[in-house]
Order: sequence, then C-alpha cells, then structure tokens
Amino acid sequence: MCRFLAYSGDPVFLSDLVCAPTHSLVHQSLHAAEAKTETNGDGFGIGWYGDRPDPGIYRDVSPAWSDENLVNLCQQVRARTFFAHVRASTGTATTRANCHPFVQGRLMFMHNGQIGGYHRIKRRLEALIPDALYDGRRGTTDSEAIFLLALANGVVDNPIGAMAETLATVRELMQGAGIAEPLRFTALLTDGDSLTAYRWACDGRPPSLYYRETETGLIVVSEPIDGCREGWQVVPKGGTLQARRGERAVVLGADAIGERIAA
Amino acid sequence: MCRFLAYSGDPVFLSDLVCAPTHSLVHQSLHAAEAKTETNGDGFGIGWYGDRPDPGIYRDVSPAWSDENLVNLCQQVRARTFFAHVRASTGTATTRANCHPFVQGRLMFMHNGQIGGYHRIKRRLEALIPDALYDGRRGTTDSEAIFLLALANGVVDNPIGAMAETLATVRELMQGAGIAEPLRFTALLTDGDSLTAYRWACDGRPPSLYYRETETGLIVVSEPIDGCREGWQVVPKGGTLQARRGERAVVLGADAIGERIAA
Amino acid sequence: MCRFLAYSGDPVFLSDLVCAPTHSLVHQSLHAAEAKTETNGDGFGIGWYGDRPDPGIYRDVSPAWSDENLVNLCQQVRARTFFAHVRASTGTATTRANCHPFVQGRLMFMHNGQIGGYHRIKRRLEALIPDALYDGRRGTTDSEAIFLLALANGVVDNPIGAMAETLATVRELMQGAGIAEPLRFTALLTDGDSLTAYRWACDGRPPSLYYRETETGLIVVSEPIDGCREGWQVVPKGGTLQARRGERAVVLGADAIGERIAA
Amino acid sequence: MCRFLAYSGDPVFLSDLVCAPTHSLVHQSLHAAEAKTETNGDGFGIGWYGDRPDPGIYRDVSPAWSDENLVNLCQQVRARTFFAHVRASTGTATTRANCHPFVQGRLMFMHNGQIGGYHRIKRRLEALIPDALYDGRRGTTDSEAIFLLALANGVVDNPIGAMAETLATVRELMQGAGIAEPLRFTALLTDGDSLTAYRWACDGRPPSLYYRETETGLIVVSEPIDGCREGWQVVPKGGTLQARRGERAVVLGADAIGERIAA
Repeated sequence: MCRFLAYSGDPVFLSDLVCAPTHSLVHQSLHAAEAKTETNGDGFGIGWYGDRPDPGIYRDVSPAWSDENLVNLCQQVRARTFFAHVRASTGTATTRANCHPFVQGRLMFMHNGQIGGYHRIKRRLEALIPDALYDGRRGTTDSEAIFLLALANGVVDNPIGAMAETLATVRELMQGAGIAEPLRFTALLTDGDSLTAYRWACDGRPPSLYYRETETGLIVVSEPIDGCREGWQVVPKGGTLQARRGERAVVLGADAIGERIAA
Repeated sequence: MCRFLAYSGDPVFLSDLVCAPTHSLVHQSLHAAEAKTETNGDGFGIGWYGDRPDPGIYRDVSPAWSDENLVNLCQQVRARTFFAHVRASTGTATTRANCHPFVQGRLMFMHNGQIGGYHRIKRRLEALIPDALYDGRRGTTDSEAIFLLALANGVVDNPIGAMAETLATVRELMQGAGIAEPLRFTALLTDGDSLTAYRWACDGRPPSLYYRETETGLIVVSEPIDGCREGWQVVPKGGTLQARRGERAVVLGADAIGERIAA
Repeated sequence: MCRFLAYSGDPVFLSDLVCAPTHSLVHQSLHAAEAKTETNGDGFGIGWYGDRPDPGIYRDVSPAWSDENLVNLCQQVRARTFFAHVRASTGTATTRANCHPFVQGRLMFMHNGQIGGYHRIKRRLEALIPDALYDGRRGTTDSEAIFLLALANGVVDNPIGAMAETLATVRELMQGAGIAEPLRFTALLTDGDSLTAYRWACDGRPPSLYYRETETGLIVVSEPIDGCREGWQVVPKGGTLQARRGERAVVLGADAIGERIAA
Repeated sequence: MCRFLAYSGDPVFLSDLVCAPTHSLVHQSLHAAEAKTETNGDGFGIGWYGDRPDPGIYRDVSPAWSDENLVNLCQQVRARTFFAHVRASTGTATTRANCHPFVQGRLMFMHNGQIGGYHRIKRRLEALIPDALYDGRRGTTDSEAIFLLALANGVVDNPIGAMAETLATVRELMQGAGIAEPLRFTALLTDGDSLTAYRWACDGRPPSLYYRETETGLIVVSEPIDGCREGWQVVPKGGTLQARRGERAVVLGADAIGERIAA
C-alpha cells in the first residue's frame, strides 16, 4: 500500500502541499497513519503540468524522506495540476520505472492497491495490452499494466466506463486462475485539466480516499495531510470523484464503478 | 554491446581477472577496444559459485569503474566458476534487474548482442515463456527473455540444440514483424561445472569471443584482458565452446549452431 | 539511532543471523522495537573477515529490507567474524561512505549513537585527526570521525583507554561549544580476532546493547534478533565487553569507560 | 576533468541547450572532444533560477546519458540563468554531494579542474573555512572547498579579487606540502543575475573555456555544443569573463586573475 496526493487548481508550489504540512506526504513516507504499512520507503514520484502540454515527472528509488532532490524540486516547481506518490512495494522491484505516477503522452496515473496473486496472471494480463502501448511499458508493476490496459479500453474518452471494464477484465483473469486474494484499486487519472479519482475493491475494502475543495483548488489524498479529519470528505467505497479545473468536483457513489464490474 | 568474462578452473579471487589485468573488465568498462561502444557504463554484474549450489550474484547500476563495492567483493570472493559483465544498454533501462548475469536456480547466463527491433516483438516473445518461468522475469531486457525461453526449450539438458531452437524462434518473430536489424548473440551459460559459450549472428557479424586455456583454468572473454592477442584463441563465427571443469574445452565450428538455425 | 549485529565464532553464513531470524536485522530495518526510530532505512552495511587479512565490506544507500544484493551476499558469504548495520541518519547524508561499518586496514568499527550538536564542532574535531588518517576519511559522519580519532589515540593496542580518551576529547569540544545535547556511544570495534563493545552516554542513557554466548560463538546486538529477551544478557551502562575468538567474553561495568571519561 | 555549460539571458528551456544540440552536454558525457577524459560519467548536476530567489538544483550519481529524470526536467524547466555539469571524478567519491553545481544561498558555483595532491592538503584547506560556512559543506571535493573559502574571502562583492586570493592560498598550501602537480581552475560563479567565468592554471594549462553572445543571451561552455568552433570565442588563459543579464559580457586577459596570484 502506498500514499498519494493530487492537486488541481490555481498554481501552487508543490512544497506547499508535499513537504510543508504537519502530516505531509514526505512525513507519511515514514509515518503513514491509515495505511496497512506505516513506512512507504520503496521509491516515490511527482508529476506536474507546467509550460508544456505533457507533464514533467521525477521519480527515484530512495525513500522520499531523505531525497534532497525531491525537496528541492518541490520548492521550485509551481503547477496547476500535480500528483505525488510514496511507494510501499507489494512485491515488485524498487526501480524508477516501477514508481508512480506513470505517464503516457498527456495522461498521468497513480495507484494505491494491488492485484492479488498478480504474478500468476501477469503474463496473461500483459498479453491483452496492444503492441503500441506495450512498447511504452517501462516497469513490471500491476499498476502500470492496469493503466495501459485502461488506455487500450478508451479511458481517455470514458474515464469511468473504461476503467470499470478494465477492472472487470482483471477480475476475470484472477477468477480464472483461482486467486483468492482481493483486487483493490484506489487510483487517480488526469490529463492536466480534468481529473478522475477511483475507490473500489472486490472485497469491499478499498484503500482510503479523501478530498478537500476550497475556492482556489481541489486536493485528493490517501489520508489528510494536516493530521486531522476536519474539513476533509470521504470518497465513498465503490465511488468516483470527477473534477475539471475551475469547476466543482462531482462525487458518485458505489454504482459509479462497483456495479458496472459486478454487472 | 557489452563486455564480459567467464572463468572456470581452480578457485581464484575474482579480482585477479576482473580488476588486476592491464586491460581488465573494469578497465574495459571505460575503454573497450573491440566493442561498438568504447564505454560500457550502464551497470555491471558478477555471479559466482561458492559454498552453495546456487550462484551468488552482485549487480548494480553504477559504472563498474567507480563502484567501490565491486572492487571490494572481487578482492574477497574466491570461486571455481564465475561470470563478470559490464553493460552498454541497447535501449532498455539501467536497472539492477536488467544487468547480467541472470540467474535461475543453479543456472547462470550472460549475453553480448541484441535482438534487432526488440520492442516490436517483445510482447509476443514474452508470451512464449511459460508462466512458471515468466514469474522469474525480473527485468525488461531481450537477453533475459532469451534465457527464459531457452530454459523452457530444455537448454539444461541440450545446451546447443535448445539454444539454436530458441534463436530460430526469435528469428521467426523478427521476420514476421518485418524487422531488418540483425539478431546478434554472443553468450555464455553455466551451471557451475559445465559451461557453454555461443557466438552467432544472423548477418554473420557476431560480437567477438576469445578464450585461453591453462593448466589451472579456462578464461572466455569478449576481448583479451591483457591488451594483446597472443595466447588467446578465437571462437569461430557460428561456433560454440563447451567445457567441463577439469577437462579440456571443445570448440565446434559454424555448424554447431548456425546451421541448425538456418535449417 | 541505528541497529546492528556483530558475530565472532565458528564460521557461519551471514544470512543465518542477518536475514533468517524472526526479528533479524533486515526485519529491524523496517520494524525496530527498542530504537528511538522504528525505521532504519538510511542505508546499511556488512563487513566480514574471509580469506584475506583485511575485511570485505558491502554498503549501500537503499533500505536493507529491499536490497536484493544484501540478501544474496548474506546467503553466500561465510565468515568467522562479521558486522552488520542498518542506519537511521541523525542528519548526515545518505551515501555509501556514511554507512557503517567503517574500515581502516584490518580494523572495523560501527556505531549507534550521536555526537549532539555535531555540526558545531565538526571542523574542530576533524582538525584533531592526523593527515595520514584524515586522508582515509571517506564520508562526513560523526561516527567515522570518532573512529579515526580513536585510531590516532592508539585504540589498536589500548581499546578501552584510547576510546575513553577519544570520548573525553569529544566531550571537551562539546562543552567548549556550549552544546547541551548528549554524546551517546554504543559501538563495536574488531580486528577479526578480538572484539570490543562499548556502551556509554554522557547523560547515562546509552543505546541498548545485548549479547549471547554459545559454545560456537558470540553475538552482540542492539536488540535481540529472536524478538524475546530470554537467553540474552545486557552490557551494563558505561561498561564494555571484550572477547577473543575461542575464549569467553569479559564484561566490565561502568568503571570501564565511564569513570575514565569523568576523571 | 569535467564538462559544463552556463546560460544567462532570455528564459529558455534547459533542454534546448543541454540535450538538443548535436554535441550537447549530455552527448559530451559520453563523447567529450576537448577533455582529458572522453567519458564524463561520474554524476551530473543542473542548477537554475526560477520563481524563487534561491536556485533550484538537481544532481545525481548516474551518468547523464542514461538519466531519464535529467531529460525530463530539462524539457520542463525554463530559466533565465542556469548551470549544467557532467563530472569525471579526479579521485573523490561519486555522491550527489560531490556533484556540481554547488549552492550556498543565492550563489551557485561549478568547476572544471583539480587541486593537484588535494588529499595532502585537504585537512588544512578545510581548517581555513569558517564554521558557519563549513557547516554547509556537504561533500568531500576540492571544488566545494574552494567555493566555500572564496565565499569566506568575499567573492560575492569582489568576484575576481577574492577568487584570486583564494587560489593564492591554495597554492601556498600546495607549495608548503611540496606538491608538484598543478592547480587548474576553470570555473563559473553566479547569483542568477551576474556571472563570472574564470580560466587559470598555475602551469599555464587551464581547461578550455568558450563563450557565445547573441541578442537573447550568453552561453559559456567547456567546448562548443554544436561540434564546430565557428561563432565561439575563447576566454584567454589567465582571464575572466563577467556578465550581467541584459548587458554585454566583459572579457579580461591574463592580468585579471593570473597576475594577482603571482603577485
């Protein structure tokens, strides 16, 4: 299990949200409060939309709490939309290519969760990814595989339906392999302007997901960065949150994604 | 293109061959003489047979010339059989898992060469690897994929025939994808006691391969480690070298592997 | 604060003590029980006496829990005397050269503790180290500085007296700079055959230190590696433990080191 | 010997100068043309002035030619003044803290050259740095020591005189230690608005230094980034170049720095 943060709104320095708060993401890399694992030291990543249409990305394998480059970049980079992620590996290697967020063109994706028994369906899952997208696979994680398959399923134009279809496919592979461990999926997708957050698990126990809206922007997090729950709202289990910059976020309940998969 | 060295014989400290000679492998990481690229700075690896049946392995992403751990280990580790490899990437990422040698159980493999147009057949090549072996895939290189497919083809019992079959399969995939770039394959395989060296390319231009036999052991290298060619013999193009510890090496000509693939 | 383990006795594979036990050092890197910090993820190191008079050493900056090279080496390396250390930085950078153990010739040293207000006396402390030894300074830690100064003070021939003198000097510098934070020093020194363990702090709160003697060897640790305290003895505050391979350890009380410094 | 590039002028993306040109700095990391060493693979760094008064900095230990983070950052970061450096170590370790540029507050410095016999005067040189500045020493290089001593000597207000004084002090230490190897110093200093380039060596053989001025900005380099010398001017041996953003650069001859040291 990992910890993450997403922001969309008026441009801010990344450090204001990633490093400065009492219970910031950097602090959570050593002391997560609501995660299965307290330590998220298996690499990290930030991705942001700056002066180019495609996002910038910085990922490394050291723990976030001791990476001087991360602190420095967060102090310098100002962005209207950005993702930040600290990783606790569920089995795959600690390499840059296995760190979130993942980028394909203008799209950016990050995930907290796990495909149970992934190694038993890995090859078959990868075989479903079209060659053109598979060529862009850089690492070996389940998260990146889901992202690429979702792209193949049309997640750009249909963020909820295509992701539900993708998760349904993963579930089929898991069931075909007789895997008992759950599929858990709390994730975020953006193109820099619109953002979708997902929270679903086949066993009804998806990782936590909170958000806070102010006049200047939207923050979505694994757990509150100020260490208290006031002012934060919960994305319901099986639900989604969708937002465009400058508009209020729309939160949908369990039928948003859960029922499509069950169907 | 990479540079490598293999040894089998009376136990020696790795440093005697990897670090000390005038034109040692560590020296070649910065100044290779016969390679397409002079610099082989995209990681390195050593693998050796010590007090356990399975080999030890140390691989890292820094250039060999500046890695203090490598020097230190080579000074301490004494082995009857070992591999050493310095890497010049042909496109895949610089991660530990992409560094040679690769190990599966008691077997160890390293490669100098390339599958031309690899990214265009990567997914189909991987789909040929059985699940049980695919689960052991740690990196993303063409070299590791060849190793795993060769294991599936029975390279343990039939080192030449199974490898020829493997290369023939790769060639078919390449031809099916209309790939014009060549497949070049100079490689080494061992289980600690017996060793097979291969030198073949579909365009008749395989990377160089030399060997030297003394009363105490056999050395196989990409290029001589003393900077001169005296005392070194060439493994012929399309040929193989096979050796068991304590017995003289047997070198076979072009018909060993080349004709089997052509057939 | 860090966690460490030292062994001296009949040759064993490092993995038997470093990786295998329930509460092994690798486990402690993520879940230390008696340390100020639960996570010790700022690098690690092992040092061992093998077939050479000087020790081998492997140190890296990744957390011990995710380093495949560490696991692999510990499975292969068998030694009569070895140190292992997982680091929680007290302020200096996460570099290989700042990881313990430190080696000078045949001597090896590791430390758990801290010079309070180190940065305020760093330059003056370094100025006390003779040029010949200072030339061997590779990192920037307080621990390495103490080691080098102890060597200058004759710790080889007089392990307790010279170390007491060294700590007294550090205390003087601290007092001269008006530093209120304590000097805490739980440490180990060996030449491969004899071993000295120290446990002292100027405020009477040195980090924990345990040992266990069997017929085959001596283990000294920051905290028991089996998760229970039975069978482990405590080195008293202000005391030392001295051992030669094949002889029983001698434990001295508070007067061993504490009173010499106070004097 | 290293390779570097500095820019000051209208804001540009770093990639336009660091990655894109035929003989860019990234290309020089593998194939330098005018350096003592063709390969500059011992780490790299970039430093730039963005939306904060203090510069941003990204340094890492991998070779520049294979670092995906470097390429990505250079594509995203736009700056009015920046430094970029690829390192070939002259003996000190490959750590981030030993990579250029070095930053102290608003000041940034990078160096190509070497203090001959540095290890023999290292401790005495460091002892000349005031505590407040020595506390900011992060690495172990001669270059960082020169920078800190120059700051102590007032290089902010007197860039040429204070640097000449600093080099004279280093020369005295070298002569006192009977060091025959030369002191070579081609270097750059900036506060984001004004920039000073130095080219001097005690043996009259300083590393090369070129510059090019256009209407939009000034580029200073170790060697031309387009692979040809047309359009580039040489900073004379013993000379300096000084520039303020928006004004033409002023180049001074040998008397600028050389004669002050000799005096």
